[in-house]
Order: sequence, then structure tokens, then C-alpha cells
Amino acid sequence: MPIVTLLSDFGAKDSYVAQMKGVILDNCHDCQVVDITHEVQRHNILMGSFLLETAVPCFPKGTVHVAVVDPGVGSERLPIVIRCKDAIFVGPDNGLLIRAARKLGVVAAYRIQRPEFRRAFVSSTFHGRDIFSVAAGKLVAGLKPESVGRRVSKLVELNVPGAKLERGALKCRVIHVDVFGNVITSAANDSLVKLGARLGQRLMVRGVVGSFQGRCAKAYEEVNPGELAVLKGSQGYVEVAVREESAAALLEVGPLDELEIRLVR
Amino acid sequence: MPIVTLLSDFGAKDSYVAQMKGVILDNCHDCQVVDITHEVQRHNILMGSFLLETAVPCFPKGTVHVAVVDPGVGSERLPIVIRCKDAIFVGPDNGLLIRAARKLGVVAAYRIQRPEFRRAFVSSTFHGRDIFSVAAGKLVAGLKPESVGRRVSKLVELNVPGAKLERGALKCRVIHVDVFGNVITSAANDSLVKLGARLGQRLMVRGVVGSFQGRCAKAYEEVNPGELAVLKGSQGYVEVAVREESAAALLEVGPLDELEIRLVR
Amino acid sequence: MPIVTLLSDFGAKDSYVAQMKGVILDNCHDCQVVDITHEVQRHNILMGSFLLETAVPCFPKGTVHVAVVDPGVGSERLPIVIRCKDAIFVGPDNGLLIRAARKLGVVAAYRIQRPEFRRAFVSSTFHGRDIFSVAAGKLVAGLKPESVGRRVSKLVELNVPGAKLERGALKCRVIHVDVFGNVITSAANDSLVKLGARLGQRLMVRGVVGSFQGRCAKAYEEVNPGELAVLKGSQGYVEVAVREESAAALLEVGPLDELEIRLVR
Repeated sequence: MPIVTLLSDFGAKDSYVAQMKGVILDNCHDCQVVDITHEVQRHNILMGSFLLETAVPCFPKGTVHVAVVDPGVGSERLPIVIRCKDAIFVGPDNGLLIRAARKLGVVAAYRIQRPEFRRAFVSSTFHGRDIFSVAAGKLVAGLKPESVGRRVSKLVELNVPGAKLERGALKCRVIHVDVFGNVITSAANDSLVKLGARLGQRLMVRGVVGSFQGRCAKAYEEVNPGELAVLKGSQGYVEVAVREESAAALLEVGPLDELEIRLVR
Repeated sequence: MPIVTLLSDFGAKDSYVAQMKGVILDNCHDCQVVDITHEVQRHNILMGSFLLETAVPCFPKGTVHVAVVDPGVGSERLPIVIRCKDAIFVGPDNGLLIRAARKLGVVAAYRIQRPEFRRAFVSSTFHGRDIFSVAAGKLVAGLKPESVGRRVSKLVELNVPGAKLERGALKCRVIHVDVFGNVITSAANDSLVKLGARLGQRLMVRGVVGSFQGRCAKAYEEVNPGELAVLKGSQGYVEVAVREESAAALLEVGPLDELEIRLVR
Repeated sequence: MPIVTLLSDFGAKDSYVAQMKGVILDNCHDCQVVDITHEVQRHNILMGSFLLETAVPCFPKGTVHVAVVDPGVGSERLPIVIRCKDAIFVGPDNGLLIRAARKLGVVAAYRIQRPEFRRAFVSSTFHGRDIFSVAAGKLVAGLKPESVGRRVSKLVELNVPGAKLERGALKCRVIHVDVFGNVITSAANDSLVKLGARLGQRLMVRGVVGSFQGRCAKAYEEVNPGELAVLKGSQGYVEVAVREESAAALLEVGPLDELEIRLVR
């Protein structure tokens, strides 16, 4: 059964997400809709991009991914469809989709223009329901991405913090703090190898307010409760964690804050 | 694949919603269950009614909608099924279902009485699982609404605040505050036209503690950050929003509070 | 359509749950995934066990239940599959699954060892995705539980508080506080009968800070607003509730606190 995933900043207390699901199912009776998350911080495109990018590789080929973090709804930003090698993305052209789409291999992008890919009446404030869900439903039902409208040659980019090795230190930023308080950084997992960190080795992590000692570990259980662990994260990026506690609280860091990790010799 | 929707005030941290889903799926192996929301404020029938009413028109024909905001569970309030033109509602007869059902066109209502529409053992405190979910599962599997029990001729009404134009002012109430702090009023979208408000026009919105200037807008982006916008809402009702901020916080209003909107000449 | 249920302490704001769903659906294209809850308190195995045990009996035969509350991920605790009479459980061998599995009738348990029941690359911190979801997807697609690996003869037990009648008092503990503040105890429903409590009878409930009078009731509506009710709960255990309010707040109790219920003569 074909799958549509949904990501948004709509939260759980309204019926906005359900309205999108209703429209998708009304346009394709035999698909199922799976939530990625609807708890993206309001209008935080970077957070939405990260959560999307880490989730989509897990889904089967042919999945249609709809993402709506859309501060510019009703303005000139384009509603788009991105055709990837084995998946389709639907959403606003504001940088939200681009990293996830590139991860799956972008083939071409199109602007949603044709009337059959919108509801009869399109509100100015809820394109998630009135455009994106209609398009997603039709696409998962088999219509071709190229039938939605004209090809778009250049998509809006997203400015994502990077990471670099500088004088023996891995300098990066906080990309996300998860529910456990684990800090996911902008440094890819292999940068720990490049830094020369071996399992068990003492490391120093510097956040905003000070530095903390920790250890390069494989799993949370390898450090003592309350101790800082630096590990290759399950999301593909270096993670800083504190066993049974919140690393973000200990380091007093949040998204976009700088982090520096270096070896203790 | 047939669809059952669920709405309740059960929240996400318990397993009550899952128990309902299990029972529905046990009674109909080939349906899918879609959440409308489970974050209705405890026992707030008006809030549940609004969220239900705005969501159900999006779903395909034949959908069965189960809603449980049920302070009188185990008392004399009736468990009912409402057959509409292209949908079925299941829940308590306490006003929760009636507006949504009327929107889809009520054909007839029935009291759930027959033992095959209940679990073998019915608890006194969880009819959502023991009666409504069984009935919903059987109905979505194809049993007829009229087979659940005797016809009910008069349903419990819900007292919903209205709106009126009085001496050049649109007087209405707050029906719902959404996750973004947007204020959804009891005034239908066309009352803005009746008020004589044109796009871009200055308006004055009076809440509980004072009055604020704003503008009649089409989309959030048309006003400046921090500025008040009055717009035709995506839910069918006039909305008051503040770009990138919370209108409810600015106006200091919550559900059922009075609002007055007038033109600035 | 076959069903997989999910329970975890992963919350709603990350994409961890979606990653598990993606992997399950990638391993079985024609199943549906139903959430039990993801709001288990971090690493609280007892809370997870309770929510799992009360939910699983509602689901159809053949359902595969995946549960992940897993403080020891990446350590020596075993990843297991428990085959029951009409269901399969997948998760860590840390006591989380055992009560729910016994309720459905344990047939045998197996350690997940074979490479086809794991992703090609298994992270040390997210076995929910890299092992349990793969195994669940393959099992719901029809692979046999005994094919995952060697049989496990002894599972890790969970220490669950009991209840006893002592000198005319029912001594038990708080197992769970639900979203309404209802207190679910460790005493099975029939212990109210053994205590000699009849409907309407005055009871005394002693929590941590003091004693409160209440009444043995059938439904919440039978007591006055603000009054304490002791009832046979819908989850199989004696519940203490306050109509329209929170019994846990009134009694000032939380999970594992002691409660004593006695008749007022």
C-alpha cells in the first residue's frame, strides 16, 4: 500500500493535520498516511529540515513526503513537487525540502500550478490542506510529478551550519536537541575519526558557558550516570549525551549554539 | 480502504486511544484509523464539536467518525449513531456530534442497544472502548446504522455562540485558539463582507482588556510582524492573527470571550 | 491487513518513531502501524509495562507488538522476540514485555541474532530502528519467530508492586496516574469485593499526606463534583477518581506511592 508521510509545525491540539489526512485519503483511497512529526518549532525551517532528512531514508521506495513549515504561506513562495530517484517531495519552496530531497537524489522539480492539483477553493492561509495534500494524494495515486506544472530550475537553498577541524578541535553547532536532551551536532559521524578520537578516550566539550570532560563512547551505558559521552549518533551526526540526564541542560546549549570538541592528551 | 476517525480528550500519554483502535481493528480487519485530535480540553464539548466540525468535511465518503468527550459516561446519556448522507457518527448524545453531523446532512439517529454492538463486558467508565469502538468497527465493516437499536427522534443540542452585526460592529466570540495563537471567532467568513471590510482596510479589534488596530488581510504575510490581521479563515470562520506571534496573547482572550470588530474610517 | 503496534519513551517531537515506522513498512509493505503511546516517562519500564499490558488484549490475533523503553541499549541486554498464542512481542529483554506477553500466553522466546533481522549497519544507540523494527516487519510479513535466533529459556522479570488485604484494609500502590488524574492502583478489581465494599458505601482512602473520605461507585457521575470515588477500573485495576478533578492531586500521590483503602463503618 503506497505511503504518504507528513511533517509540520501544526502540533497535536488542532485538527489541521487531520484535515490534511482527510484530503490525501479523499484523493487516494488506498494509501496510508504516516506522521513524521508535527512538533517542529513554529516556522523553524532548519529544525523541520533536519527531522525530515533523518526520517525519509527509512521509508520504502515510492513514498510521497509532504512537509509544511511555511511562514510565507499565501505569499510568493512557490508550492513545489520534487521528484527524486525513488520518492517524491511536496511542500513550499523555502529550503525545507531540499536537503532531504538531495539525500534521496533529486531528478527534477516542478511548480504546482494545474487546477486539478488544488482544491476548488484555496484558502490563503492553509496550503497544506488546499494544495499540498491534494497534490500528494494525486501523486501517490499515480499521477506524474511533471503533470503538476512548469519545471523549476533553481530551488531556494537552506543555510545549514557546517563543521570543521581547526587546530585539533572539532568546531560545530547544535542542530537539534532531542527529547532525551541529547545534543545532535552539525558534524558528520566520521569527523570523530578525523579528530583522532578512539573509543574510551577522554574528550573535552566546550559549550556556551564552559567546558566539560567526557568520553568517546559507543553506547550510553558505557559511561557512568551523569557522565558526558560523545558518540557516533544514530542520525548520522556526532552526538553529545549524558547517561540518564540531559546533555543540553548540562552544557546549557540549544539549536545553533557553537560546540567545540577536542581530545584530552 | 474504509476509514474510521477518532476524536477525544484522552491525550497521548495513556493507552486509552490505542485500546479503542485495537477494538475497532478487531471488529474490522481492513480499515484504517485516523486521529482527528485527542487533545480536546477535558470535558470541553464545545471545543470538541468545533474540531470535529472543521475536520470531517475533508474525509472521503463513507467515513465513520467516532468522538468521545464524555463527562456523563456511565450515566443516562445515550450512546448514539447518527447516519448522515455520506458518513456515520458514533459517540455520546451530549451535543458533541450534532454540528458536524448537520454539516454532512443528518438522515437519522439511533440508540446503540443491541448486544453485538458492545463488548461482552462493558465498563462503566470507558464506553469509548466498550461501546463506541465496537459499533464503529461493525459499521465500517458494513453493518447498517439502523441495526444498532431504536431510532432517536430528538438529539441533545449544543449551545454555540453566534455573531451579529450591530451598529457597524461585528460582535462575536472566540471559539478556538489554535497552536499559533490565532483566534478563530464565531463569525462566518462572509460576515467580513457584510461588515464592509475590504482587503487592506484598517480595522479595530476589541478584546477583553482593550482595543487594537489591525488590517483586513488575505494572508499572514501581508501584515508586518507583530501587526494584527483580520482574515477569512481556513476553517470557515473569521480569524484574528498576529504575524509570527500570538493574537490570543496580544488580545488576552480565550475560548468564549467576546470580540468586537469594526471599521476604522 | 496485519498490524504492528509501537510503544516507546521517544515522545512526539523527534522523528525517531517515524524512522521505526519507515523501517517496518519497508520490511512489510502491507501492514499498518498503530501507536500505543510514545509518552512513557523516560526509561520507566514499569510505566511502559502497564500501558502495554492494558492495551494489547484489545488488538486482533496475529498482531506484532514492538515496545522500546531501553536504558540498556547497546549493552548486554538481549534483543528478543516472544511468541505468544496469538501475538508476537519484539523488544529488549529488560522486563518491559513480560507481563503483557504472559497475559496473552507465552509460548516461547528467542534472541534476535540472524543478520536478516537487523539493518546492514546497526547503531549502538537506536536498536528500536536498527533491530526491533526490522524484526517486527519481517515477522508481520510472515517469517517465523523461531527463525530470529536461539531460544531463550529465562526472561528478565519485572518487579511489580502487588496488593494485599490486611486487617480490613486494602493495601496497594499507585501504578499509573492517567491524563485525568485518575489513580490506577496495583489492586485487581475483584479486591474491592474481597474488601466487602458495596456500591454507594463510604470508604476511606489514605495516601501519602492524609486520608480522604469517598464512596464506592460505578461511574464518575455517581459522586458529586470534587468528591472521591473508588471504582472497578476499565483497565482491570481498582481506580480512585475525583469527578471533574484530579485524584492524584487531591491525594498528592504519584507512581509507586502507597495507598490504603478501608470501609467506613
